[in-house]
Amino acid sequence: MSDLGVTVKKSENFSEWYTQTVLKSEMADYAPTKGCIIFREYSYAIWEKIQQIVDKKIKEKGHKNAYFPLFIPESLLRKEAEHFEGFVPECAWVTIGGDKKLEERLAIRPTSETIIYSMYAKWIKSWRDLPVKLNQWCNIVRWETKATKPFIRTREFLWQEGHTAHATKEEADQQVMEILEIYRDLMENYLAIPVLAGKKSEREKFAGALYTTTLEALMPDGRALQMGTSHNLGQKFAKVFEIKFIGQDEKEHYVWQTSWGISTRLIGAVVMVHGDDRGLVLPPKIAPIQVVIIPIFYKEVEMEAILKKAKEILRILQENGISALLDDRTEYTPGWKFNHWELKGVPLRIEIGPKDLEKGEITLARRDTFERISKKEEEMLKTVKRTLEEIQENLFKRAKQFLDTHITEVKSYEEFKEVLRTKGGFIKASWCSSSECEERIKEETGATIRLIPFEKEEPFSNCIYCGREAKVVAYFAKAY
Amino acid sequence: MSDLGVTVKKSENFSEWYTQTVLKSEMADYAPTKGCIIFREYSYAIWEKIQQIVDKKIKEKGHKNAYFPLFIPESLLRKEAEHFEGFVPECAWVTIGGDKKLEERLAIRPTSETIIYSMYAKWIKSWRDLPVKLNQWCNIVRWETKATKPFIRTREFLWQEGHTAHATKEEADQQVMEILEIYRDLMENYLAIPVLAGKKSEREKFAGALYTTTLEALMPDGRALQMGTSHNLGQKFAKVFEIKFIGQDEKEHYVWQTSWGISTRLIGAVVMVHGDDRGLVLPPKIAPIQVVIIPIFYKEVEMEAILKKAKEILRILQENGISALLDDRTEYTPGWKFNHWELKGVPLRIEIGPKDLEKGEITLARRDTFERISKKEEEMLKTVKRTLEEIQENLFKRAKQFLDTHITEVKSYEEFKEVLRTKGGFIKASWCSSSECEERIKEETGATIRLIPFEKEEPFSNCIYCGREAKVVAYFAKAY
Repeated sequence: MSDLGVTVKKSENFSEWYTQTVLKSEMADYAPTKGCIIFREYSYAIWEKIQQIVDKKIKEKGHKNAYFPLFIPESLLRKEAEHFEGFVPECAWVTIGGDKKLEERLAIRPTSETIIYSMYAKWIKSWRDLPVKLNQWCNIVRWETKATKPFIRTREFLWQEGHTAHATKEEADQQVMEILEIYRDLMENYLAIPVLAGKKSEREKFAGALYTTTLEALMPDGRALQMGTSHNLGQKFAKVFEIKFIGQDEKEHYVWQTSWGISTRLIGAVVMVHGDDRGLVLPPKIAPIQVVIIPIFYKEVEMEAILKKAKEILRILQENGISALLDDRTEYTPGWKFNHWELKGVPLRIEIGPKDLEKGEITLARRDTFERISKKEEEMLKTVKRTLEEIQENLFKRAKQFLDTHITEVKSYEEFKEVLRTKGGFIKASWCSSSECEERIKEETGATIRLIPFEKEEPFSNCIYCGREAKVVAYFAKAY
Repeated sequence: MSDLGVTVKKSENFSEWYTQTVLKSEMADYAPTKGCIIFREYSYAIWEKIQQIVDKKIKEKGHKNAYFPLFIPESLLRKEAEHFEGFVPECAWVTIGGDKKLEERLAIRPTSETIIYSMYAKWIKSWRDLPVKLNQWCNIVRWETKATKPFIRTREFLWQEGHTAHATKEEADQQVMEILEIYRDLMENYLAIPVLAGKKSEREKFAGALYTTTLEALMPDGRALQMGTSHNLGQKFAKVFEIKFIGQDEKEHYVWQTSWGISTRLIGAVVMVHGDDRGLVLPPKIAPIQVVIIPIFYKEVEMEAILKKAKEILRILQENGISALLDDRTEYTPGWKFNHWELKGVPLRIEIGPKDLEKGEITLARRDTFERISKKEEEMLKTVKRTLEEIQENLFKRAKQFLDTHITEVKSYEEFKEVLRTKGGFIKASWCSSSECEERIKEETGATIRLIPFEKEEPFSNCIYCGREAKVVAYFAKAY
């Protein structure tokens, strides 16, 4: 294969494979601005799909979109101390506007709690104003100093951030879980990526939250990827920003708040989890192009009839809501086109050649299994629909199997380190709940607690690190 | 009326009326960041409608969305000298990332030609790669020093910017006009705002363009508002950024480029053009809520039957694709609700009271004319649909009449100044085409050339300013 394709194996050099795949499939490119990427049309189209799916679901639940400023005055960001400490190392600062030095420097939003809640304090007065359920789709800047990885770690990325205010803690708790379920559904049923759900440890929770819930996926190199988080902020921000309401009891109360987000990082997860040595493999439900039709002819004389048939198939697919593309360019060979669309991960290819035409058949080629199927033309639509569903299911099944076989229970710190070194993945271990042990484990092994399951699992040993009595079972992993 | 409503008349204090209307209708609020506003859910929903309309149309024409970085290194922005000069006074600069001073400061994009075209230079190699037709929906920052006006002039706003590259000037010319027509359709047929189309003068064109086409609307205070622009950039950027392709003739050529945009400013235009003393009046096609249903009952005993009927109507409307809301809150009176939804400009109100119920009727109240119509319940859906169409048409007709009666032809500079002082609006005048006259007129009167019509109109006097021979007829106005 020419160097137009991916030149390393996924299993041999995962990191290089990833970079080549996102660049050569034209999902992303490096920008002239250090640490930033271009979200090219092919990845942006996936982001648009994700947006449509999530936007529809949160609107059905009564959330509305709004847009708050990019710039957060430093004094505002400082108001909640824990939050400021958490984000200040990653802030980019505007210090000059036009030709004037600003009196107060402005942070480019690393997240928008502070600016949004300064407004909630003004807007919320009575129980009648609650709940407030706003969301925004926007760009976010975090001044990463580690090496850039397209979609996974860049200085600017895109996300949605939801921010709600409620009258009671119970309502906020419910809100947190309702969103986590919407996220899980997106990840498992659309992106075909299985996730583990649970709470973050105190050390790993969002800066300023009461508690953080998370969804974690496993990448093929054995490292975990945080896919989305949903936080109960308690009344911490409410007290700092004075977000109070007069209740039906005619007394003043602080609101209870949540915030939650998913980002363009999810695109990176899709690439990593499903891709193979030929490039991307996209789940049909989020593939910008679900079916590519490639006419094959060797003689000029065959062309007309084949193209006519190809256009007919295109029309049928499009009329049935399938995103199909006919690659009828004459400047490229069928072989070039096969490689090109495989690199771009199109789930299903339809070939129409002279023999197919003669027999009244079409040939389908699956991107996930490379299986080729010949079918009578009348069965085309039915077969395409069913095959797209099968590909979607198969991708999830493969990923689920990998995840399931990479959750390892360990009872000793030696075993812990051994599994981390040889196999990776999630390591289930009993833990005493002290941040000190957690911190030490991270320093010594690089692994962090990814989550503590919602349904408490009984510790099956003493604390993996200190040997004292364990309080909970935690899932550890090295993570992106 | 209480101070919940707008307390000044649109005809008496337009500026204050505007501010009160956008704040009290909860479209926008001032942000803690100076010069910025919050796009609250009610205005953002209008922006989403505009996005849907335009996004669909440009995608049908083969444009794709992508996303380029917010940050533009200064050296990149400087590459096209005219462009840099035009935008540098309005740039906000990031100089610190994390805790480090940056080696090169980064502009927050005031527009994205430079960063996008640096990539086009890399991506475009052959005629096979053309045309490139990308668009992005994003935030834009221009460090305005004049007073802020929500939607019309703020330091951050939202827009779309399209950027295309073509093999020939003719294709680029066509692209410019194709987009202008999509914009015009949006403005006239959805926002119900009539616009004038034409070219900008050399002085007023986009910094770096070969020529700029524009759509201009007239606000009720007699000032013009630039609603959208579409530029032919010629080969200026192509030469600076080295965007070259090998043609079918096997020779190297520079591409021809266009760029074009509309912004959240359009929301401000909708408010100004259609609003009245009670607040917003929204054109049905872009109103987040097209119909509000208000149940009216004085006795507890009437409530159940009326609410049942109201819900039935709500269901019928929603099933027929009409965005309807039932305001069944018991903590507010019908009178309060009338004022509230009038302030928010909902095009049509349906009232259901005991008498309506008795007679099998419903009462409709139009927001634009305040006309009240009683109809048999069976005719509800048909009447609602027709009335929404009528409102849409009526708003456009009213605005068109205002525009038509505010285009004044003048033959002398005295007359020019007199019309500007007393009546405002667009002033048609013959002009010698020199930037010097244009500049002097601006200095002396504040009026600028808004456009030169595409279809050349014959000069009907000598140059309004210098008295030399006139070359063209230009439309002047004071503008936002």
